[in-house]
Parts: sequence; C-alpha cells; structure tokens
Amino acid sequence: MTDHYEDLEIGETYETGSYTVTEEEIITFAEQFDPQPFHTDEEAAKESMFGELVASGLHTLCLSVRLFITDIIDGDDGIANMGGLGMDDLRWHEPVRPSDTLRVRISVLEKTPSSSRSDRGYVDFRRIVINEADEEVMSIVSHNIVRRADAAD
Amino acid sequence: MTDHYEDLEIGETYETGSYTVTEEEIITFAEQFDPQPFHTDEEAAKESMFGELVASGLHTLCLSVRLFITDIIDGDDGIANMGGLGMDDLRWHEPVRPSDTLRVRISVLEKTPSSSRSDRGYVDFRRIVINEADEEVMSIVSHNIVRRADAAD
Repeated sequence: MTDHYEDLEIGETYETGSYTVTEEEIITFAEQFDPQPFHTDEEAAKESMFGELVASGLHTLCLSVRLFITDIIDGDDGIANMGGLGMDDLRWHEPVRPSDTLRVRISVLEKTPSSSRSDRGYVDFRRIVINEADEEVMSIVSHNIVRRADAAD
Repeated sequence: MTDHYEDLEIGETYETGSYTVTEEEIITFAEQFDPQPFHTDEEAAKESMFGELVASGLHTLCLSVRLFITDIIDGDDGIANMGGLGMDDLRWHEPVRPSDTLRVRISVLEKTPSSSRSDRGYVDFRRIVINEADEEVMSIVSHNIVRRADAAD
C-alpha cells in the first residue's frame, strides 16, 4: 500500500535501513563532485581542520536521499512522491568517516494542500542522518510534492 | 592569489565555466542516489509530472558544487575554503534535461567573523545555476568557513 498525501500524518516517523560507506566511495564521489583535499587525499586531510579524511557533506546528503528513496518512497509502504521543490536547513553536525554506517530518520513536519492543483499536496519532511554511534551527523528539511489518493491511478 | 576571509567583499560575484550534462550521466547518477522513474527511465518519465526524463535535483546540486570547487575555490584566484556548515533555500526552478549546459553564478551574501576562532570567518554565498537559455534552474545559499589571511600558511 502506497501512502498518498491524505495518508501522511504530521509527526509520523520512518526509519531507513543502514548503509556503510567505504573510503573508496568517499574518494570517488569527492573526485567527481567535491574535489577538496580533505575529501580526496588521506595525507592532505591530516593538515585540514578535520585532521583526517572525511566524506563530502554532499555525499552524506546523496546517501541519505538514496536511503529515503529506496527504503521509504519505494518501500513496502511507499510514499507517492511526485517530485521535490527544494530543501532547507541542511546542517552537517559531525564528520562522516570511512566505514561509518548511516541510517536516516524521517518525520512528517508539515502538510499543505495545493491551492491550484487538486491532484497533489506539499509535504515537508525532516530527515536526520544518524551514524552507528547514534550521533546525528546531518539534518535537513525537504519540501516534496505528494500525489493525492483520489487523483492516483 | 587565493582570496581569504578579509579579501571577500559582499556583493562580489563570480561565474564558473560551463558543463554539459549527458543523458547517460543523468541516469547513472539517479540509479546511484535518486532512483525515481522520472530520473532513470525515459518511458516511465513520460507518465510523470515532468513528461520527460529530467535530472535529479540532487544531481544539479552536485554539478553546481563541482563547478564551484573547480572554477572558484580551486581557480586561479581561489577562495581559502576550510569546509561547509550547511545550506539553505535550495530551490529547483526549472527541470534540467539531457544536453543542458549549466554554469553557476556565485555572489558573496554575508560575512561574519568567528567569535571564538581567530583563524576563520563565516561566509554565505548565493549560488544560482543557469542553463544555456539563461534560465535560472536552481538556487541555494551555502554557509562556508573561510580561512583568514593572517592565519594562512
């Protein structure tokens, strides 16, 4: 059963499965999208404010979206997401290091029916990325467009 | 010459070179980080609210960070970026399609000296992603930590 706009309740929370990120993935991602020495070079990273190689925050964001899509949007009880409008309040609280295991806790923050389109509503989700030590490493609010049940196929 | 915290002036703007995104890259990125049918499957995308295959907004964000890093942070007149604190006001205004050519316009929005660390200051950058038709496809504000010249090596 897919959850539509009407099915989502404010305060409802979901938790994804977990994903362990490798040093190789951290470097490969950073070389492509965020080529700064503290994300791509173990030696250079020692001289940075992090003191060691850390994942690009953008990589953490991407991994959190992947878990949100595969485990929640596409999960057994998925959400009828039509697309995204944007994101706010992205903050990186703790560095993500090689071999860290991440999971995402998602809660429904706010719902607003579309005033112009009867087939959809807007849903804000707070998403928190947690590591294996239960530390919050990242948080963000995403603004999604969710299909209404009565407009669904 | 690298620009340090003191060198950056509010209102100063930078523009990156451009990058043309291919359909193959759009699908590869989405399969890894945002596997929704309107980003991975041309046929399924026709049934989506986009009506055609479009890049993941996360992909657009990643490409904009890459251009910011390679052309501005690491450019001839680079910026002594120490890391990022977070981002706000991420909005996708227009879809990005295969073969679109993107560039990024970056302006210095705000500067705040660190009250506790004499080697750094906080700089907010507004970044706008523009396509080949000069349409604004994405905008975001990033919060960066920039090294002060008198603390630089």
